[in-house]
Amino acid sequence: MYNSELNKYSSGDVIMELNAYAAGLERTYGKDTVFNYTLGNPSVAPPESVYEAVRDLMNKTDQMAVHGYSPNPGFRNVRQHIAEMINRKYGRELTLEHVYLVPGSCAGLAILCKALTEPGDEFIVIAPYFTEYSAYVDAAGAKLVEVMVDLETFHLDNEAIRRATTPHTKAIIIDSPNNPSGAVYPEENLRCLSRVLREKEAEYGHPIFLISDEPYREIVYGDTEMPYLMNLYGHTIVSYSYSKSLSLAGERIAYLAFSEEIPDLPDLMRAVGGAGRIFGHACAPTLFQLALLKCSDDLVDISQYRENRDLLAGHLKKCGFEFVPPEGAFYILMKSPVDDAVRFAKEIAEKYRVIVVPTDAFGLPGYVRFAYCVSRDMIERSLPALSSIAEEYLKGNRS
Amino acid sequence: MYNSELNKYSSGDVIMELNAYAAGLERTYGKDTVFNYTLGNPSVAPPESVYEAVRDLMNKTDQMAVHGYSPNPGFRNVRQHIAEMINRKYGRELTLEHVYLVPGSCAGLAILCKALTEPGDEFIVIAPYFTEYSAYVDAAGAKLVEVMVDLETFHLDNEAIRRATTPHTKAIIIDSPNNPSGAVYPEENLRCLSRVLREKEAEYGHPIFLISDEPYREIVYGDTEMPYLMNLYGHTIVSYSYSKSLSLAGERIAYLAFSEEIPDLPDLMRAVGGAGRIFGHACAPTLFQLALLKCSDDLVDISQYRENRDLLAGHLKKCGFEFVPPEGAFYILMKSPVDDAVRFAKEIAEKYRVIVVPTDAFGLPGYVRFAYCVSRDMIERSLPALSSIAEEYLKGNRS
Repeated sequence: MYNSELNKYSSGDVIMELNAYAAGLERTYGKDTVFNYTLGNPSVAPPESVYEAVRDLMNKTDQMAVHGYSPNPGFRNVRQHIAEMINRKYGRELTLEHVYLVPGSCAGLAILCKALTEPGDEFIVIAPYFTEYSAYVDAAGAKLVEVMVDLETFHLDNEAIRRATTPHTKAIIIDSPNNPSGAVYPEENLRCLSRVLREKEAEYGHPIFLISDEPYREIVYGDTEMPYLMNLYGHTIVSYSYSKSLSLAGERIAYLAFSEEIPDLPDLMRAVGGAGRIFGHACAPTLFQLALLKCSDDLVDISQYRENRDLLAGHLKKCGFEFVPPEGAFYILMKSPVDDAVRFAKEIAEKYRVIVVPTDAFGLPGYVRFAYCVSRDMIERSLPALSSIAEEYLKGNRS
Repeated sequence: MYNSELNKYSSGDVIMELNAYAAGLERTYGKDTVFNYTLGNPSVAPPESVYEAVRDLMNKTDQMAVHGYSPNPGFRNVRQHIAEMINRKYGRELTLEHVYLVPGSCAGLAILCKALTEPGDEFIVIAPYFTEYSAYVDAAGAKLVEVMVDLETFHLDNEAIRRATTPHTKAIIIDSPNNPSGAVYPEENLRCLSRVLREKEAEYGHPIFLISDEPYREIVYGDTEMPYLMNLYGHTIVSYSYSKSLSLAGERIAYLAFSEEIPDLPDLMRAVGGAGRIFGHACAPTLFQLALLKCSDDLVDISQYRENRDLLAGHLKKCGFEFVPPEGAFYILMKSPVDDAVRFAKEIAEKYRVIVVPTDAFGLPGYVRFAYCVSRDMIERSLPALSSIAEEYLKGNRS
C-alpha cells in the first residue's frame, strides 16, 4: 500500500540499528557495562563562542530577522562571510554566489547528486564509504561505481579510479579525513587523483566533478594538513559541515562551496535550488546560520579526540589487532579476526557488550569500525573486554 | 551539463522572486516607500517561553545531548510529549510511534508524498494551493490532480472532489486555515469531505489518505474552531509546523502525526524513514526539538495579525476591491480588477510599489494574495497607494 521501493533504505542504516541495540543493552544491564562504539556523534562540547553567538542572537531586538525564513541558499551576509573565510584561508576568489547553505551535509550531498545528474550518469565512490552516499546517488537516478581503496595504506588507489572512469562519469565523491578508516590522504595522493581526472576530462571532453565531503577537515592529529582541493583541481565542489568542527551535528548546519572554475555555474545553482525545493529543504536553520558570523572559524578541543585515539589504538595494538593507525576523524577501522565481520560484531556485542559497526554496508567486508568519540571513561572501562576478545579470537582458543 | 529537469522548479518560486524584486526596490528607493506584501514570514516575535527554553538548554551540563544527532524520527521523549499533547487536546490515543519529527513541514510533506506513492498514484490538491505541493507530488513520481475550491466561499467543493477521485487516488492534501485564501473550512464542510472519501474508499476497496497541512491551525480570528481531522476521518495524517504558531519559520521544526487507524503503520513508517534518508533529512534540529518540551503549547500574540487583517481588509473593502473576508492565516486573496492578475501585480509594483503575489502559480488565475504578516506601520503607509490603485483600476479612468 506504501512505497516499498524505499524498503532498502529503511533497513540499511546499520549504525542506527546497532546504536539502538546498544541503547537496549544499556537499559537492561546498566550504562556502565555496555561499550558503545557505534555512533559518529561528537563527544566534545561546542566551543564557548557558539554559546555567546546564540545568546547574543536571542537578545536581538528584531527576532523575526533571526527566526524567520532565510532565502533558500541562506542569508546573503552569511554566504558572503563564508566565501571570505575560504578566500582568506585558502587563497580563493569565491563570492557569495559560490556558497549555498544547507541544513546539514546529508541535505547538501543529496541535493548536489540530484542537481548534477543527467540520464546515464555515474558517480564513483571510494570503498569503504559513508553508507549514505549510495542512497543519494540512487535517489538522483544515477549509477554508483565502487572503487576499493588501497588496503595497505587506506589512501586512494588512483589506478583503480582511472580504470573505473567512463564517458558516463559525472563525479567522484571522496572524504578525507576518512569515515570509516580515519585515513588522511597525503597531498601527493590527491595531486595524482587530480591528474587522473584532468586526463579523463580531456579524453571524454566534459567535466568530471570532484565532490570533497569534508566534515572532518580540521579533525587531524598528525602533521598532515589537508590541501584545499579547489587548489589542486578546478572542478571541485566542497561539502562542509559544522557537525564535527563545532560539535553541532544535531543542528543541521553546513554548506556547499563551488569552485570559481566550474562551468555554467548559474545553471548548476538553478538545479541545486530546484533539488533543494523538491526534497523539501526550505533553508538551513537560521539561528545557527547567523551564529556562524561569530564562530565559523572556531574549533572544538580536538585534543580530547587525540587522547581517545591514542588510548584505544595503543590498547588494540598491544592486543595484537590489525589496523592502519588513523590520522584523522574519530574512527579506527580494524580487521576482523574472523572473515565474517558481521558475525564477529554480533558475538562480541552479545558476549562482551562491545558494540562496533561491521563495514560490509560501507562496501568493505571483513572489517569493523570503532567510533572513539566517546567518554574517556568508557574507553578505559572497555579495555579488559577488548583484551578478552583478543584472547578469544587471536590466540586460537575459541570455545 | 546539469539536471535540466529541475529547471521547472527553479523558476516557479514566484513568491521568493517577487520578494527579491521588492528588496531591490527597497535598496533603490528606501524601505519606507515600498509595500512588500509577498512573503508569509511571521511578523510577531516568538513567545517568551521559547527564549526560556533555549536559554535553559544552552546551560545544560550535557551539551552533546542537546546538539548531537537525534534518531531520524526525533528524540523519543519529544515524540512522546507531542503524542500526549495531541491526546490531551483532541482525545486521541497516539503513542510516540505515531509522531515523526521533521526539519520543517516542507520536509514533512516531501517525505510523506514519497513514502505514500506507488506507481500510478494520484494526489488531489485544492486550487488555489500552496505552490510547493506540486513539487513534492512530482518528486514522488505521482500525478497531481487539481480540484478548484468553491469560489463563492473558498470552502471545499466536495462534489468536485468526488468527481476527481479515481481508483488511483492515494491521498488528498488540504490546508485550513488556507494559504492563500485565509478561509477556514467549516466543520460541516469537512464532515462532508470525510463522507465522500469514505464512500470512495468503500467503492475502490483501498484507503484514501487525508493529508491535513496545518501550519496555521491556531491562527484563527473568528469563532470558527478547526476540528481535529483524525476525529472526523480515520485515515488522516497531520503535517504540523511551529513556523507560525511559535514564529520559528527559519528554525525548521515540525512533525507528522499519523492516526492510530492507519493500516500497516510500521510499513508506512519504514517508507517515511527511507524517504527522509534519500532526501537527506537526518533529523529535525535538536535544540528546537528539545525546546518543544517547554513551549509546544504556546502561541504567538495573534491579536497583532487580527488587527492587521482588520485594517487592511477594511481599507480594501472601502476601496471597493472584491475578496472573501479571511477568517484565519495571514492572507487576503483579492480578485484582480483586470483579468490578467500577473499584469496587474506587475503594474502596481512598478507604479505604486505595492508588491502582491498573483496566484496563477497556485492554480488560480485572476487573483492576487496579500500577506499581511507585516508591520502595522507598513500597512498604514500603504493605504493611500491602495486608494490610488482603486481609483485607477476600479473607476474606469485608467490612463
